[in-house]
Amino acid sequence: MTDASRPAIVKAARRAFARQPYDAVTLRGIAAEAGVSASLIVKHFGGKEALFDHVADFSDAAELLLSAPDSELGRHAVETLIRWRRETETDLLLRVVFAIGVGDERKLMRERFHDQVLRAFADRLTGERTAVRAELIVAQLLGLGAALAVGKEGPTATADPALIAELYGPGIQALVISTNGT
Amino acid sequence: MTDASRPAIVKAARRAFARQPYDAVTLRGIAAEAGVSASLIVKHFGGKEALFDHVADFSDAAELLLSAPDSELGRHAVETLIRWRRETETDLLLRVVFAIGVGDERKLMRERFHDQVLRAFADRLTGERTAVRAELIVAQLLGLGAALAVGKEGPTATADPALIAELYGPGIQALVISTNGT
Repeated sequence: MTDASRPAIVKAARRAFARQPYDAVTLRGIAAEAGVSASLIVKHFGGKEALFDHVADFSDAAELLLSAPDSELGRHAVETLIRWRRETETDLLLRVVFAIGVGDERKLMRERFHDQVLRAFADRLTGERTAVRAELIVAQLLGLGAALAVGKEGPTATADPALIAELYGPGIQALVISTNGT
Repeated sequence: MTDASRPAIVKAARRAFARQPYDAVTLRGIAAEAGVSASLIVKHFGGKEALFDHVADFSDAAELLLSAPDSELGRHAVETLIRWRRETETDLLLRVVFAIGVGDERKLMRERFHDQVLRAFADRLTGERTAVRAELIVAQLLGLGAALAVGKEGPTATADPALIAELYGPGIQALVISTNGT
């Protein structure tokens, strides 16, 4: 129960912090959604601030998405995103979209997204215009995550991940290998 | 003032309905954010339900995005999305992402998105796997909108729309003209 409750807590926390201002989020509310006690959250994560830090971190997501050679990065990122969603019912990146808006905590999440995801992709690229190409690669991944979340029973969500990678990977791959944006 | 207030009302309403359950949204709150009186909203739109209907409609967005020949659709859709955001400070499609979750009204918005956007794109395509290709084209547009919203001062948001269309259009275009998904 203890180990199995961690992903449920993280999922509930991601939702809570993505949907409400930081001040409005309560451990009690997260605990209720996760089906655990608030004290178990404290035991696992040490409190609300630490839980927010955990949820707002994208470094693992970036590492997962980038763990392939350049020549296979498009396909790999697409398949990784889809498989992660199927296994965890969460998206690796999409929560940043819910952090659009005002509030210091939302700003922190967007800044971390910039530092941990956009910069990691840009650092990986060679050639010209790495910052904009990285942002557009990540845009495609955000979009795929959005489409999967909007259409939970849609054609993309229900297809073989390898087929989606075949269709959606090349657009990403073109921005990985592009060296000239004009 | 009256004409100029319409877009402000629509923008405030989109935000309100995207961020809160239908029942929690008030005309007074939308009016305050739009800087108008609640009675002006009633005059323009006729009330909360009519305003929601207006905001939840994607048919104009789909028509705008699809108003180009097949051979130019990728570039056109990208440029249209960017220019619309710059002119209106809103996104043509992204609000559907905020409609992820429970609640009849959110479900209605997702259903309209399916009927008015995904189906319109699928109807436009020829060849095989039109439904999944349409969803992946729209995914790229949702992702572009998400990236622009997250990085308001980022490299994509501040670049020439024609350059972004050059970089981001081909991935969409490949799905427009693709006839074989395997």
